[in-house]
Amino acid sequence: MKIETRKEVMFAGFGGQGIVTAGYITGQAAVVYDGKEATLTQVYGPEARGSSCSSGVVISHEEISYPYLLNPQIMVIMSQEAYQEFLPKLQQGGVLIVDSTIVKPDKQAEKYRLYKVPATEMAEKIGVRIIANVIMLGFLGKIWDAVSVKALQEAVKANVPKKYLELNIKAFQTGVKLGEKALKRKIKG
Amino acid sequence: MKIETRKEVMFAGFGGQGIVTAGYITGQAAVVYDGKEATLTQVYGPEARGSSCSSGVVISHEEISYPYLLNPQIMVIMSQEAYQEFLPKLQQGGVLIVDSTIVKPDKQAEKYRLYKVPATEMAEKIGVRIIANVIMLGFLGKIWDAVSVKALQEAVKANVPKKYLELNIKAFQTGVKLGEKALKRKIKG
Repeated sequence: MKIETRKEVMFAGFGGQGIVTAGYITGQAAVVYDGKEATLTQVYGPEARGSSCSSGVVISHEEISYPYLLNPQIMVIMSQEAYQEFLPKLQQGGVLIVDSTIVKPDKQAEKYRLYKVPATEMAEKIGVRIIANVIMLGFLGKIWDAVSVKALQEAVKANVPKKYLELNIKAFQTGVKLGEKALKRKIKG
Repeated sequence: MKIETRKEVMFAGFGGQGIVTAGYITGQAAVVYDGKEATLTQVYGPEARGSSCSSGVVISHEEISYPYLLNPQIMVIMSQEAYQEFLPKLQQGGVLIVDSTIVKPDKQAEKYRLYKVPATEMAEKIGVRIIANVIMLGFLGKIWDAVSVKALQEAVKANVPKKYLELNIKAFQTGVKLGEKALKRKIKG
């Protein structure tokens, strides 16, 4: 069995935050605009616990042999409940991106490379609270090598109503800029 | 971290076979009629490979800490493509149930407890080819201890149009009977 260049991201939060949409856009970006393979899974149905909501994307250069999330190396977490629930499953040394307007990381987060993105706060400034997921996508594109900023932006454009196109691009670019700043901070040490 | 009594089943086949419905019914049976915890995941979107389709159900007595399929102990496989794709991920010594009208198991299957169910052929005899998934559910309920036959039958009833209720019960019972026979064969050795 060949070793895959398998990359995995989980998005998690509560219903209505566009958690599944974020996964969908990421998968589409990888496949349609970056020319890679990707699979998308979501947890759904009355069996999904409480208000928690998650989706998973696997991205690879090769065909993906198993589409479910096995060992996510990056998590985008947008609710405290999802933080408690899923963080123990983040790969050791993995990347944790939280919506810091909503999620207050505790001691557990010290094991990971933590990025705090005040996505909901900034989305409110833009004027649309539910666009926080798109800010997260911009940030993700900037700091993660599995999917490019360009591909993500194209996929965002392809998935939002024309009426809200500009707002979404603005949100996405806000995320990209925050990602740039965060990377500079990391490099400076 | 406590050890879960975690049970996992994967359904896989091609689009139109009711693979996701089978997962949905199994999850609902476990939660609503057996009083257990369950999560349902499905692979979907344009990122899903080719015509392959799968869904995963995790069932437990306790709260489930991770909703994605990690290590399925039972697979219900309804297409040759899904057989090739997913079988290597079946737990060692796990249970493999194939729709033998469609899937021809090869040497790989020797590692598992194999059950051949001519579900599509029997569904055609009942008069509705697409009811093969319900035959598989009856069979699954009979041989798997994670979900009861009674709960599965209730969930089947709750999820099919009234018009086709009798046909579905007939299909389900056909599966249960095949499961009974298969168990007897195994016990006799």
